Amino acid sequence: MISIDGDRLLADLRKLSEFGRVENGVHRLSLTDEDVAARKWLVERMTEAGLEARIDGLGSVYGTTPGAKRTVLIGSHTDTVPKGGWLDGAMGVMYGLEVARAFIESRDTADTGVDVISFVDEEGHFHGTTGSLAFCGEFDLETVKAFTNTDGVSYAQALERVGFGGTPLALLDRGRHIAFMEAHIEQGPVLEQARKRIGIVTGIAGMRRTAVTFGGQADHAGTIPMAMRRDAAAAMINFLHDVRGRFEAMAADNTVWNFGYYRIEPGAPNQVAAKAEVTVEFRDLDKDLLDRMADAVEAAAADAAAATNGKVSLETERVVVIHPADMVPEIGRDIEAASRALDVEPLWMQSGAAHDAMHLARRMPTAMLFVPSKGGRSHDPAEDTSEADIVLGAQVLAGTVERLLARDAGSS
Amino acid sequence: MISIDGDRLLADLRKLSEFGRVENGVHRLSLTDEDVAARKWLVERMTEAGLEARIDGLGSVYGTTPGAKRTVLIGSHTDTVPKGGWLDGAMGVMYGLEVARAFIESRDTADTGVDVISFVDEEGHFHGTTGSLAFCGEFDLETVKAFTNTDGVSYAQALERVGFGGTPLALLDRGRHIAFMEAHIEQGPVLEQARKRIGIVTGIAGMRRTAVTFGGQADHAGTIPMAMRRDAAAAMINFLHDVRGRFEAMAADNTVWNFGYYRIEPGAPNQVAAKAEVTVEFRDLDKDLLDRMADAVEAAAADAAAATNGKVSLETERVVVIHPADMVPEIGRDIEAASRALDVEPLWMQSGAAHDAMHLARRMPTAMLFVPSKGGRSHDPAEDTSEADIVLGAQVLAGTVERLLARDAGSS
Repeated sequence: MISIDGDRLLADLRKLSEFGRVENGVHRLSLTDEDVAARKWLVERMTEAGLEARIDGLGSVYGTTPGAKRTVLIGSHTDTVPKGGWLDGAMGVMYGLEVARAFIESRDTADTGVDVISFVDEEGHFHGTTGSLAFCGEFDLETVKAFTNTDGVSYAQALERVGFGGTPLALLDRGRHIAFMEAHIEQGPVLEQARKRIGIVTGIAGMRRTAVTFGGQADHAGTIPMAMRRDAAAAMINFLHDVRGRFEAMAADNTVWNFGYYRIEPGAPNQVAAKAEVTVEFRDLDKDLLDRMADAVEAAAADAAAATNGKVSLETERVVVIHPADMVPEIGRDIEAASRALDVEPLWMQSGAAHDAMHLARRMPTAMLFVPSKGGRSHDPAEDTSEADIVLGAQVLAGTVERLLARDAGSS
Repeated sequence: MISIDGDRLLADLRKLSEFGRVENGVHRLSLTDEDVAARKWLVERMTEAGLEARIDGLGSVYGTTPGAKRTVLIGSHTDTVPKGGWLDGAMGVMYGLEVARAFIESRDTADTGVDVISFVDEEGHFHGTTGSLAFCGEFDLETVKAFTNTDGVSYAQALERVGFGGTPLALLDRGRHIAFMEAHIEQGPVLEQARKRIGIVTGIAGMRRTAVTFGGQADHAGTIPMAMRRDAAAAMINFLHDVRGRFEAMAADNTVWNFGYYRIEPGAPNQVAAKAEVTVEFRDLDKDLLDRMADAVEAAAADAAAATNGKVSLETERVVVIHPADMVPEIGRDIEAASRALDVEPLWMQSGAAHDAMHLARRMPTAMLFVPSKGGRSHDPAEDTSEADIVLGAQVLAGTVERLLARDAGSS
């Protein structure tokens, strides 16, 4: 099996974490100064590794193995959420760099090899998974340039400010790219609690968000008898209790949901709520179940509004609909074999979080592997993975790529 | 019966509403420029009416009938909530001015009469019912001076800015004041729906607020299995549904409650809530029922936390405890007699809102009368009462004072 250099990988990861470091975490939003510096550094490191590297017209960093005609594409993202952790997407990009470097170093000829990509704006400073959607041809340049960040700065303005733009977009090439592989920290506690060191992702859960807004009337909470109130918050409480029961009755083993966002207006203890908005989020691998859950949200909301006899109005909107993405089982079995070759028994598991890989999966054979997250923490400075697990993940990835390239060579 | 001058009363009310007018409403927070101008104008109008008028050391405006040894004290407040209505407390103060003026004009001798007060900071720009609490001796000057408004300005700084302070506090004088009477718009729909023009307040509901805070852990809402979450919002939903059921089971006819204030952190659709805070407010005339409701809040909260098996923590705090205040039935019957003398049948009803009168009621015979609020609206530019009802209320108040003074003279 091809060998990666664990110390070199860890040193690169630590160096990358210095760009945007804030205390124990990393704050590296897409196209900010620290993000741009990290991208330029990554181009240098790719070039030193023997890759042909460039920053594309949206800011994604793309490195290709010179002379290779068939490659496994490895990547993830180096941007972070506000005050995020040091691994997250960064680890998957540096895995790509290290595996590509190991292949280049190990072989004289290079008609196959590894390409590496760091997709821009995965975390949504402007939109979310922007780089991978553009790479798949689902966004053109003009669409992306119109996105604005939370400061009201457009993507076009941000590109101009940092001197990016004008170069071609990196694009998926089905003649070249055999498969896409993304490695990532699990971001959950499943591997740690199961005492497993490698997770093979069966699929990425689809995700829905439905915004449910009840409309009532702001009134003095002391002077209006209960029966005369148009209380939006009371309807919301009924709705939340009801929909949670419906979800529990229909959920599969890995179904998850969250009631995390609320807006109550006017929002004072002594004012009846004129508006109560809650966003219901739910995820599963089964698209049909997600459809039924979306229906259940609307049914529970309609029941809660109907119970007010017209005093409270209702609006629902399916604000996010992301379909589940299946990973390729054949590549999963390659990951399994590469793990077992290192005497490590992996765990097949779903990804509850969204990843760039979900878009690639619609276009090409795609797989993901996870390494454990300490305490299940992520998107937080506390995010961490043991050095041994970080190195193991890269070695398993290298072994998987070796199998993929060998099988591709055998079939051509 | 003594006669008030309805046109003069309405003209004064309209003039007062010009101080701090914003479109159809009035924005006159205590000790702002517009509030101070209104207070100075009120001193002028009181002086013109023959009262000895002054602004006390905290900003309350106090006018006394010269030569009178026994008086009925009439008052309310001229400050407003942000973008409030034109009547609210202002009406009760101008009733006091008009009734005092009518008595002064109608009689040569004045060993009895009417004193008038506009209590400062009723609406809580600094604290709430500050003037009436100080008038009752429950706050000293130094306590009040340390209060700060939402801009961080202390009461002491505000007094200095506007040139108030240094004068004595107006104080309750049980040797002088026979009774306190506060007239107010109802701020609810009860009179309008019952087609009654005068409300006699039986008592002011006590009010409690309990802040309930569940503590969990912020986690990725896609990657953490449901059973492993420490979801503060889920506990809050259980709590709210449970406590509402308990309230419904124990409520009396006029009991009211509100779940109007929420704070969910971090507050994102894809983040499990680390903190979920809700303030439960409830009001009733029966102190024992309020005690039982406060206990029910804590029991429901404890049950919701216990159901998480230690994953979610709980804090509850009884942040506001205001006891119910009974009005004096004998004065209520005077109001009833004064109404019937005008061929108007009044309605006995509770006050769901708090008023300065609740503090006076602990110290002296106190009564309130209500006039209807159009559509039940208050604390809003839409707040209004018909001119005929405004004038009627003042006339009923004058008739009531006449009865009170006559009975006091008869008993002394």
